[in-house]
Amino acid sequence: MSDPLPSITGTSTTPISILLINPNGTSSMTSACLRSLESTLPPHCTVTGFTTPHPTPSAIEGHLDGVLSAAAALRAVIPIAHSYDAFLVACFSAHPLINALREEVRGPVIGIMEAALYASRMLGGRLGVVATGGRSKVMHEDAIRMYGFEGYSVGCETTNLGVLELERLPREKVLGLVGEAARRLVYEKGADCIALGCAGMTEMKVKCEEVVEVESARAQVVDGVGVGVQLLIGLVREGHVTAKGGVYRSSKDGREARGQEWL
Amino acid sequence: MSDPLPSITGTSTTPISILLINPNGTSSMTSACLRSLESTLPPHCTVTGFTTPHPTPSAIEGHLDGVLSAAAALRAVIPIAHSYDAFLVACFSAHPLINALREEVRGPVIGIMEAALYASRMLGGRLGVVATGGRSKVMHEDAIRMYGFEGYSVGCETTNLGVLELERLPREKVLGLVGEAARRLVYEKGADCIALGCAGMTEMKVKCEEVVEVESARAQVVDGVGVGVQLLIGLVREGHVTAKGGVYRSSKDGREARGQEWL
Amino acid sequence: MSDPLPSITGTSTTPISILLINPNGTSSMTSACLRSLESTLPPHCTVTGFTTPHPTPSAIEGHLDGVLSAAAALRAVIPIAHSYDAFLVACFSAHPLINALREEVRGPVIGIMEAALYASRMLGGRLGVVATGGRSKVMHEDAIRMYGFEGYSVGCETTNLGVLELERLPREKVLGLVGEAARRLVYEKGADCIALGCAGMTEMKVKCEEVVEVESARAQVVDGVGVGVQLLIGLVREGHVTAKGGVYRSSKDGREARGQEWL
Amino acid sequence: MSDPLPSITGTSTTPISILLINPNGTSSMTSACLRSLESTLPPHCTVTGFTTPHPTPSAIEGHLDGVLSAAAALRAVIPIAHSYDAFLVACFSAHPLINALREEVRGPVIGIMEAALYASRMLGGRLGVVATGGRSKVMHEDAIRMYGFEGYSVGCETTNLGVLELERLPREKVLGLVGEAARRLVYEKGADCIALGCAGMTEMKVKCEEVVEVESARAQVVDGVGVGVQLLIGLVREGHVTAKGGVYRSSKDGREARGQEWL
Amino acid sequence: MSDPLPSITGTSTTPISILLINPNGTSSMTSACLRSLESTLPPHCTVTGFTTPHPTPSAIEGHLDGVLSAAAALRAVIPIAHSYDAFLVACFSAHPLINALREEVRGPVIGIMEAALYASRMLGGRLGVVATGGRSKVMHEDAIRMYGFEGYSVGCETTNLGVLELERLPREKVLGLVGEAARRLVYEKGADCIALGCAGMTEMKVKCEEVVEVESARAQVVDGVGVGVQLLIGLVREGHVTAKGGVYRSSKDGREARGQEWL
Amino acid sequence: MSDPLPSITGTSTTPISILLINPNGTSSMTSACLRSLESTLPPHCTVTGFTTPHPTPSAIEGHLDGVLSAAAALRAVIPIAHSYDAFLVACFSAHPLINALREEVRGPVIGIMEAALYASRMLGGRLGVVATGGRSKVMHEDAIRMYGFEGYSVGCETTNLGVLELERLPREKVLGLVGEAARRLVYEKGADCIALGCAGMTEMKVKCEEVVEVESARAQVVDGVGVGVQLLIGLVREGHVTAKGGVYRSSKDGREARGQEWL
Repeated sequence: MSDPLPSITGTSTTPISILLINPNGTSSMTSACLRSLESTLPPHCTVTGFTTPHPTPSAIEGHLDGVLSAAAALRAVIPIAHSYDAFLVACFSAHPLINALREEVRGPVIGIMEAALYASRMLGGRLGVVATGGRSKVMHEDAIRMYGFEGYSVGCETTNLGVLELERLPREKVLGLVGEAARRLVYEKGADCIALGCAGMTEMKVKCEEVVEVESARAQVVDGVGVGVQLLIGLVREGHVTAKGGVYRSSKDGREARGQEWL
Repeated sequence: MSDPLPSITGTSTTPISILLINPNGTSSMTSACLRSLESTLPPHCTVTGFTTPHPTPSAIEGHLDGVLSAAAALRAVIPIAHSYDAFLVACFSAHPLINALREEVRGPVIGIMEAALYASRMLGGRLGVVATGGRSKVMHEDAIRMYGFEGYSVGCETTNLGVLELERLPREKVLGLVGEAARRLVYEKGADCIALGCAGMTEMKVKCEEVVEVESARAQVVDGVGVGVQLLIGLVREGHVTAKGGVYRSSKDGREARGQEWL
Repeated sequence: MSDPLPSITGTSTTPISILLINPNGTSSMTSACLRSLESTLPPHCTVTGFTTPHPTPSAIEGHLDGVLSAAAALRAVIPIAHSYDAFLVACFSAHPLINALREEVRGPVIGIMEAALYASRMLGGRLGVVATGGRSKVMHEDAIRMYGFEGYSVGCETTNLGVLELERLPREKVLGLVGEAARRLVYEKGADCIALGCAGMTEMKVKCEEVVEVESARAQVVDGVGVGVQLLIGLVREGHVTAKGGVYRSSKDGREARGQEWL
Repeated sequence: MSDPLPSITGTSTTPISILLINPNGTSSMTSACLRSLESTLPPHCTVTGFTTPHPTPSAIEGHLDGVLSAAAALRAVIPIAHSYDAFLVACFSAHPLINALREEVRGPVIGIMEAALYASRMLGGRLGVVATGGRSKVMHEDAIRMYGFEGYSVGCETTNLGVLELERLPREKVLGLVGEAARRLVYEKGADCIALGCAGMTEMKVKCEEVVEVESARAQVVDGVGVGVQLLIGLVREGHVTAKGGVYRSSKDGREARGQEWL
Repeated sequence: MSDPLPSITGTSTTPISILLINPNGTSSMTSACLRSLESTLPPHCTVTGFTTPHPTPSAIEGHLDGVLSAAAALRAVIPIAHSYDAFLVACFSAHPLINALREEVRGPVIGIMEAALYASRMLGGRLGVVATGGRSKVMHEDAIRMYGFEGYSVGCETTNLGVLELERLPREKVLGLVGEAARRLVYEKGADCIALGCAGMTEMKVKCEEVVEVESARAQVVDGVGVGVQLLIGLVREGHVTAKGGVYRSSKDGREARGQEWL
Repeated sequence: MSDPLPSITGTSTTPISILLINPNGTSSMTSACLRSLESTLPPHCTVTGFTTPHPTPSAIEGHLDGVLSAAAALRAVIPIAHSYDAFLVACFSAHPLINALREEVRGPVIGIMEAALYASRMLGGRLGVVATGGRSKVMHEDAIRMYGFEGYSVGCETTNLGVLELERLPREKVLGLVGEAARRLVYEKGADCIALGCAGMTEMKVKCEEVVEVESARAQVVDGVGVGVQLLIGLVREGHVTAKGGVYRSSKDGREARGQEWL
């Protein structure tokens, strides 16, 4: 092997434009997501942050919040969707917006939960989800099964806090409980990849990375916002769009035939 | 929404270096893979092509070829692995090299089959695999189940040709049969994403794209080499390495304790 | 066994009030559902038909229609929900309204698809779904898997018609194709229970019953509207409500704490 | 929505006659089942209690008891089956009588375990089974998987008592251990629906309801006898019988052709 | 490797006694099973044929036949079980006798279906079942799933004949249809192992072996009677008995405590 | 039943020759395996022990060791394979040698893990694996799922020791921890069959048998070496070889066509 290995260095500078959709109405969360991308986003790639307007809920706890936020986001995003190459739904769940948007936009659409799950499968052998609020455990475990990864999951651990306690308790206390959840996933249940069950919470990632020894590569902590943007960039560079001949066929023709141009 | 949406444009120009490992010994295939990446590889990213040396088989048809090529590739790659940030195993299968390499190198390692499957899941609702040789059907369907995607797969369709016929028949004839397989997957079995069960065969991709109406976004044809490189770039940009505290813990300590520094 | 067997005859005449929610805006479909219940509804049980108001779509073909209709239905139903003991979502799918409504109302909530699936499991060994429009096949098969019945399903057969053709073609022609789909499910794929993938289409049920020899009990044709109402009556009579301590915990406390009393 | 909603009130008073079959020989259990139905059975519906005669076991602990009781019940029930519209097998298991009876009678046949599982799926997100005797745990978990509900189950908790201890210990002590099992299912394992793994034990239901806060709708405690009767009433009202063209085809023709009119 | 390899030749001549239980009452079938073992049974191993007495059915087509034959067999076998080291249930199904007998006898108990499935998994990559009567298809596929082999099965193919036709048609005609079923499994569906869905039918095995090219090792035809006896011999030689601390715990203590020494 | 039951005693003395392949290079382990077979191997059966030569690892901890040992074993075994009727791969894992060898040899090939799993399924209702080193847990659980037995497994318990500790600690201490692991599987997790996750460690089997009350048949401890040899003897006696028309088709024709007669 004295010959140098053949290699190729990229030159593709086609600009790529991604819309990060925060289905809830809290713009500070959208901003935090954008900030968290600053150090890793490559040149020629732009991520635009979209905060879903009224009447979306300001947080998404369950199915009702999911439906209302999806409807609000669809109505606001579809009119501007032609300006973007791909779409990231920044809610850690199998959010109903993901599949609905796939029917109506051209580019790829993914959610930060599936992004974190795919990345975890590529990086380790057992994944776990760490969540802030106690009520999401069942929803997350159902979604993991639906995505096909039940056999590779050790489940979800949470702070066991209700949503009101989460807001009342000092940040440091909550972070400590999050770290405890991550510790249980890795040291008791055998996870080597932790998916962060939230969006835009940089300090939560830092806390988990400390606890599970990311420094020594013992485990990985995966942030679906970061990897989600990167996966979309990759799909767009390869020329991919959402396939429209199957389950993501648009119902637009039908709606127009019935005189329902509005959404 | 009169305010402009907040956005961020990337500036991260850290060079990323990926080793594309062709586990078989056919260097023309390695070159074809590199060429296929030319138009989509972003700046600052270099892909180096590695053709596994003697005594690897010149094609990988089954389990024996998989094992022999994995052993040959491990011995040749590990000494140079420190120069690369990530590793793509360019054989369309759950090749044993993938997991073995994960134990020994720092960066992420994926195979082109899993890359194509993850991408297909992000782009459509039902995936299928089109393969050249008839014998791979069962192996591909077992691998799809192992990856967790049985519920989203319509299976594998092949040319039903034996390996010797594949080489004897005129290229045009083989391509026609490949197109037929893709057609069956999409129009009879309901796939909207086709994973190409090969590496470096650009004309096969073109043929399938024609047949399944990629132009109109009816279906997508996914090449694991292309999306595999992009997924690895994304994982590296996010700072990820292979998690070493679980199933991918290196056995190096044990081997050294037993006096087996060699592989 | 000369002693007569002990027996008990019911006397419970507590009135039961069920809201049948048609998530689309087509009131004629709601009326047809009510009419189809006339001959089988027991005394003391009232079913009220609710047609979801503007801006719901007038038909539900895919995910976007599902989300928009769920949001519209939630906003209109929740204010009147206290008047009803149970709720039937009359769209043949795992409609997002079902789980969202479970969070907000006291009584049981089911969809006509799950009702038809449970009934089919009780009555036979293999179930199939017959659907009018071609595009619903993948969604139905995903839902069957999600409900846990993949092992007992032979899949979904459709007319393979697009939504526009469905409306353009003469009724007789469409019914003929529906009958063909039912025939394939029973005589080629081995189903003994057919779930009707629609709501309020009495003639479709009659057609399928003819084709699959219901007369001789060879197979059963299950209408989710009819069995759905009956299952809800049964749950209510047993005193059951939706369990609120798990995945169906309401997010109302959180919303109020954040000042979002509106939906 | 100023117009009143359309509604329909039932008038169907066709009498419905259900045979509740206790496969074991303990008539006090049969009576207790009938008594437990008193307050919830609707008019025109009669439930007749059938205690399987000698040589059935007086309790059903395992597979042998299941087979012997099924054979005894089949021989005694088939001659009188024409007088009943539907059949409930009152043993909490996938009792072999259920499928065997489906082959020989016209009306629907269900078991109290499947009835409790279907009801639990309609009412909550995670189900658990509480059983008295320790040995049934594996059988119950196998049956849950066979019914397709493994993904929605947190498993079975028992008193861990042997059958002899169960009879020796004071009732209060056993009930306390049953309550402990229910508590573990809900508060440690996350169930929101508890299926009672027994028949006719009203005080066990009351105990569990107390423990798991049924009062506040936190969880539901499902009694398969009660919901089983209601589900059968619903199926009969909809005109359903067991489908006989598939796995429940009777073997009567074959037996008669071989000169085996007896059972 | 010039040294000869170490080896060991067996000397264990402990006699092993196996009871082959034909759950139906047709003694010619039992005899045929014994004859089929003649050429392959090793020394010191005795197989005794047991034909279940009245009132067992003379053929086992469905669930009712299964239950009645299991009850009859249990009553007749248990009193003589102490004379045998292991037990083979010679009905191709997940026959209820298998688990019931495991509770009451000391030695291992298996059925010929599971024996054929395990052997098929050891010998090939995809298994299929060939059955004579058309009605068994669903039962066989359910049993394959229950045993855990759904992912490795291509399903069941039958002659599609009813039980009466099977007896009326000339033997040659039936064998031809059996061969057709085997051919479909191997050449259309991709099986490489065929499990014979019957017991004691040597000519059916011969026919299938011809059709699927067993001569050239293309596929294997597995007879559960033959491999079942061999698997039991192996388990007994290794000193194994049925584990009695879990799901196969005998209910004898309970029955005796309740005064039910009889079965 | 006054007539004596018909029976048949075997006379088949065809010699059977099995190659036990230890994929690692530790010949003392091979010898221990042979010794462990002494008391149970039947006459006319010979087991030859094969220790894989340089450059195989002296122990197999993970994927890399698996691949390297498989390649070394293939090259050494294939030239002598014609002398043996069947092949046992004596590494407790889904070792890549198993499938690769199936492509190249005529006789049946199995691994000791699958042998132990099949035997456990025949003997009990819940299986568990006891392993010495802590790192194998995830690999074992993945393999159990791949073999189809996830629903019947309580998982794997280990000593939680690293490979270096395993060698440093006194034998008695390690055995004690192994016994603890077996105890947890049976008394806490409900296993009734324990598969030994090792080869040739007789004292480990003895320890586990003590702990889990094998004496009273409460549980069974299954040694894959012992049952593996017996299962192969059975398959060979029945005339079976590996099916070569499916996933185990040899790639020899292809290699020869490409001029690669060597491995």
